[in-house]
Amino acid sequence: MNIALIGYGYWGPNLLRNFSSVNGCTAHTLCDARPERLTLAQKIYPTLNVTTNIDDVIANKNIDAVVIATPVFSHYPIAKKALLAGKHVLIEKPMTSSVKEAEELIEIADKHNRVLMVDHTFLYTSAVEKMKSLIEAGDIGNLKYLDSTRINLGLFQPDVNVLWDLAPHDVSICDYLIADKPVSVQATGISHTNNGIENIAYLTLNYQSNFIAHFNCSWTSPVKLRQMLVGGDKKMISYNDMEASEKIKIYETGYEIKSEEDKTKILVDYRTGNIFIPKLETNEALKGMANDFVQALINNTKPRCDAQLGLRVVKVLEASQESIKNNGKEVKIK
Amino acid sequence: MNIALIGYGYWGPNLLRNFSSVNGCTAHTLCDARPERLTLAQKIYPTLNVTTNIDDVIANKNIDAVVIATPVFSHYPIAKKALLAGKHVLIEKPMTSSVKEAEELIEIADKHNRVLMVDHTFLYTSAVEKMKSLIEAGDIGNLKYLDSTRINLGLFQPDVNVLWDLAPHDVSICDYLIADKPVSVQATGISHTNNGIENIAYLTLNYQSNFIAHFNCSWTSPVKLRQMLVGGDKKMISYNDMEASEKIKIYETGYEIKSEEDKTKILVDYRTGNIFIPKLETNEALKGMANDFVQALINNTKPRCDAQLGLRVVKVLEASQESIKNNGKEVKIK
Amino acid sequence: MNIALIGYGYWGPNLLRNFSSVNGCTAHTLCDARPERLTLAQKIYPTLNVTTNIDDVIANKNIDAVVIATPVFSHYPIAKKALLAGKHVLIEKPMTSSVKEAEELIEIADKHNRVLMVDHTFLYTSAVEKMKSLIEAGDIGNLKYLDSTRINLGLFQPDVNVLWDLAPHDVSICDYLIADKPVSVQATGISHTNNGIENIAYLTLNYQSNFIAHFNCSWTSPVKLRQMLVGGDKKMISYNDMEASEKIKIYETGYEIKSEEDKTKILVDYRTGNIFIPKLETNEALKGMANDFVQALINNTKPRCDAQLGLRVVKVLEASQESIKNNGKEVKIK
Amino acid sequence: MNIALIGYGYWGPNLLRNFSSVNGCTAHTLCDARPERLTLAQKIYPTLNVTTNIDDVIANKNIDAVVIATPVFSHYPIAKKALLAGKHVLIEKPMTSSVKEAEELIEIADKHNRVLMVDHTFLYTSAVEKMKSLIEAGDIGNLKYLDSTRINLGLFQPDVNVLWDLAPHDVSICDYLIADKPVSVQATGISHTNNGIENIAYLTLNYQSNFIAHFNCSWTSPVKLRQMLVGGDKKMISYNDMEASEKIKIYETGYEIKSEEDKTKILVDYRTGNIFIPKLETNEALKGMANDFVQALINNTKPRCDAQLGLRVVKVLEASQESIKNNGKEVKIK
Repeated sequence: MNIALIGYGYWGPNLLRNFSSVNGCTAHTLCDARPERLTLAQKIYPTLNVTTNIDDVIANKNIDAVVIATPVFSHYPIAKKALLAGKHVLIEKPMTSSVKEAEELIEIADKHNRVLMVDHTFLYTSAVEKMKSLIEAGDIGNLKYLDSTRINLGLFQPDVNVLWDLAPHDVSICDYLIADKPVSVQATGISHTNNGIENIAYLTLNYQSNFIAHFNCSWTSPVKLRQMLVGGDKKMISYNDMEASEKIKIYETGYEIKSEEDKTKILVDYRTGNIFIPKLETNEALKGMANDFVQALINNTKPRCDAQLGLRVVKVLEASQESIKNNGKEVKIK
Repeated sequence: MNIALIGYGYWGPNLLRNFSSVNGCTAHTLCDARPERLTLAQKIYPTLNVTTNIDDVIANKNIDAVVIATPVFSHYPIAKKALLAGKHVLIEKPMTSSVKEAEELIEIADKHNRVLMVDHTFLYTSAVEKMKSLIEAGDIGNLKYLDSTRINLGLFQPDVNVLWDLAPHDVSICDYLIADKPVSVQATGISHTNNGIENIAYLTLNYQSNFIAHFNCSWTSPVKLRQMLVGGDKKMISYNDMEASEKIKIYETGYEIKSEEDKTKILVDYRTGNIFIPKLETNEALKGMANDFVQALINNTKPRCDAQLGLRVVKVLEASQESIKNNGKEVKIK
Repeated sequence: MNIALIGYGYWGPNLLRNFSSVNGCTAHTLCDARPERLTLAQKIYPTLNVTTNIDDVIANKNIDAVVIATPVFSHYPIAKKALLAGKHVLIEKPMTSSVKEAEELIEIADKHNRVLMVDHTFLYTSAVEKMKSLIEAGDIGNLKYLDSTRINLGLFQPDVNVLWDLAPHDVSICDYLIADKPVSVQATGISHTNNGIENIAYLTLNYQSNFIAHFNCSWTSPVKLRQMLVGGDKKMISYNDMEASEKIKIYETGYEIKSEEDKTKILVDYRTGNIFIPKLETNEALKGMANDFVQALINNTKPRCDAQLGLRVVKVLEASQESIKNNGKEVKIK
Repeated sequence: MNIALIGYGYWGPNLLRNFSSVNGCTAHTLCDARPERLTLAQKIYPTLNVTTNIDDVIANKNIDAVVIATPVFSHYPIAKKALLAGKHVLIEKPMTSSVKEAEELIEIADKHNRVLMVDHTFLYTSAVEKMKSLIEAGDIGNLKYLDSTRINLGLFQPDVNVLWDLAPHDVSICDYLIADKPVSVQATGISHTNNGIENIAYLTLNYQSNFIAHFNCSWTSPVKLRQMLVGGDKKMISYNDMEASEKIKIYETGYEIKSEEDKTKILVDYRTGNIFIPKLETNEALKGMANDFVQALINNTKPRCDAQLGLRVVKVLEASQESIKNNGKEVKIK
């Protein structure tokens, strides 16, 4: 499989490095409008084809798949062109700027029977994989809540707010861990700039089941926090991505609602117990993602973060933006 | 000044101990419906008068002031009786179950010229005092946000939700630190019990100025967190109440919005710098609160957490409850 | 059993409180040369007998046992008097100022068939009990080393050096955990005062087996550390007494020496794995110690920290002092 | 200046990368006995000359300086050859296996007027530079002690013990920070292998002044610790190299010995105060070291870690080994 990468900015070099080392594919062509970026890449990969023109990529029959790592607003037009030209497509997160765009891409991919996948790298980290396997094994019990904080002093984005920038990580993790899907969102936030783009935002996801998810995102925190709590009725997990090795802690902590006939006298059983810190593998997550894409191309397998997952994340983001603009009112997810 | 304490449950012993040692007052009488609680107290304070009947306290002309540490729903009727009987009143937080009750108590107190105060103990901790003095000195600059997390595996309350239980601490701290007052709230949450009382809740406060406050409260976290960030445009403060001594960290971190003529190209200046951990005094906060009340009685000074502050906290709580019940819609604070 | 406490300084109040609540004994008499200390105690314990004269305690036939919490140099003469008068004796750590004194006390206690015990409170903490049970169950494997750091900004003692002040805790824990006993010590240190009493000291214990123990003690550290590592060939334990609840961490970390025929090419197998943080009970250690003493009086059981353990600790301290004075030379323990 | 690197093992690639980017020199030739290592290097540096024969390097008149990153035992013969051939020499730490070797190299370098330097990289970290500047500015006061812990689950070295492997870092930092030089050492340790090479060791350095340094080194710890305390009579520094950004903490903690006429009654004044965490630059230390060497070649400046510093470190290591073999007895440093 010959793969072309479009966009060689912040994340592009990581993608190129990984697609260069994954079995079953060749990093065939790199496309970026800036010639100096192409020169830089060729120093490391002397045999790489380069071009400043996307259409060269689209027209090249030898290219089987395209990886799109450009700014969000351009995901849709590039992916559409590539799909229509019969190429498989991997898009950086978030998938598109709107639900409409994402749905159209899925429709095209389905019609042409092409793989369409979104790079939600965090789903391939050993920490998230460990949480997933614990939940699937039933160790955590019925899930009750997910609470996420992802804040730091971050680069203010000129075109998208802090939720579009930071929340895709945690919303995709939530989507992956929880079988149930959100029915509505509420979001609040503030913009400290004139352009009205929120640099601090808070997002709540509601579910038909008895589950709630909350996301705290900020570009204006003096400390860098990446903390997530996932609570079940058997055990609870703390996931701290800033820890070097002890990222996941599993708490034998829980509560059980006993007799509730009389609503004025609920009886709750509390449990606290041992804590377990599993050893995590040190695989590079991005390599796992790249490999998942290549396997989908070769073996027609369903990738972990397929276009449907990417779409669900965009649905949450679009709804959250509508909620913020409407003072936090509940917005249904279609 | 002779002081009577009504209610000798979880917090009562702390109040009694502190009012026994504060200058200018005498812990005169203890009232609790449970005789065994009275016996317990008399072992430590042999000269203390005790009664199971609140009316004994109200009727006693020797008693100048009453401290009310009973369940929330009874704050209003007891305080009203005491004020009407000409006594000064200190109420445990939250002041009352409703804005209406709180406003009526304030009216009565004003009419009878009595001191009415609410015990928001945290305002007397050296950590909060340090934050206050830094903000007042202008060290932090214009305040931009406050973000608070107060979660742990906590006792489910049968009558009030987690916001009424935990948020008064942080909302009162916010009220004390920020000169501006909130104009509206949005709140979301979930109840994992049949009685519909939220055990997890999220609260956003909006202000006319460019400031936002957010509160994350839970009775169902495996880890106990008490973290607050206060961001200004000069510096930012992290307040971790779980730290033994290094509770406050001041970050020379900030950002400045430069040219904003062209809204599509904002220019932000980021600063990160040294961190400063001030030494905090080890005074007992509750003693400071007790002393503040006694000084108000003796010298007619305005206490730090006067009834107006108590009322503002109840306004936030009442509005937040209305918002949760209305799926997070914005509720104005009158 | 009627118990008299001699010495009501820093630790005395804790002893009195615990012996007042342990079953099977009565806190009968308190003795301290300072009348104001006696008055203080009587406020809390109105029925307690008090005296400023030790001989009153010794002569009182109603007193079965004496608890000695006076400065170290006076342990021996008081304990001797009490034992000769037929009383059981509990002594604060360290047992005596010299091996000779400790041995004589043991001889007298044996001759008069009295219980003689030393208060090494740490052996009754749930953290140390957990380590002991793990080691005894074979979970840790053959023990290879113990490494302890106990440093803080501490009160310079006028009569004993930092090892006599701080090391008894860790040396007694080591003695309790490790079946083998040390054969020699080396110690180094420094005195930053004119009186030549070391405020920083380092102690190594050597064993006939392949085990080593090291103790780092200081009164002049800006941070308070209480850290211990215990390494076995199966697992390793980290014990951090400054942690509120997660004091003990068990690491599935180890190494195994494979082929060693050729000494120039050793082959070591390394393992790192999961980490386990056991929930610890929150019992008060001192109450367990007091109870152990009372049980020894009543049921003639062997207490956990009997006089032999107390003696072994003093042997280490005396040898370490000799080693420091001789520039770190190895001193055999008899 | 043309530079040749001899040895392309663990550290070699870092040296080559840095000497390739430092101004004023060219990475001219790489020498390693393993051809596959040379091939690897040429992939990244296509114009690099390579050879498996050291004598090629020595004989090449175009090479001005040699960087030696081979196993310790070979430092001396290679450096000697290079110096005698008129080349400047940079040696990886520790400088040599013996004091005799180091002294002979210094003699040759002096005679031939060549630069001889040792790569103690840590001296160029921003953390150590910050400590140095604080000490030189007098902020810390008179230095009283340095206490270092460098432990982890590390590779057992087949030829040198854990002190030769780990202590050079901390001994060189100590040498750099403290103007005074040690007069004697005591060391203890244990070997858990048959070959008698210590995997745990403890080292004390004694000084004529009232200063003491202690080093705790282990290859068999379940946790990785790199902690150092430096105590002065004004302030104290904690240096934790495992922290991502808050490596250095400066404590306004101290003690002052007041009246000491009567040695039985010392009077100590304790101070605890604020803590300050300076922002550290994020320069790569190794680049600073490489640059220091090149500056010494070009401008004849004295490098920070010149051969005399390298020699002093070897003196400490050799003496410590003698002390361990003699059961911890004090060994003078010549």
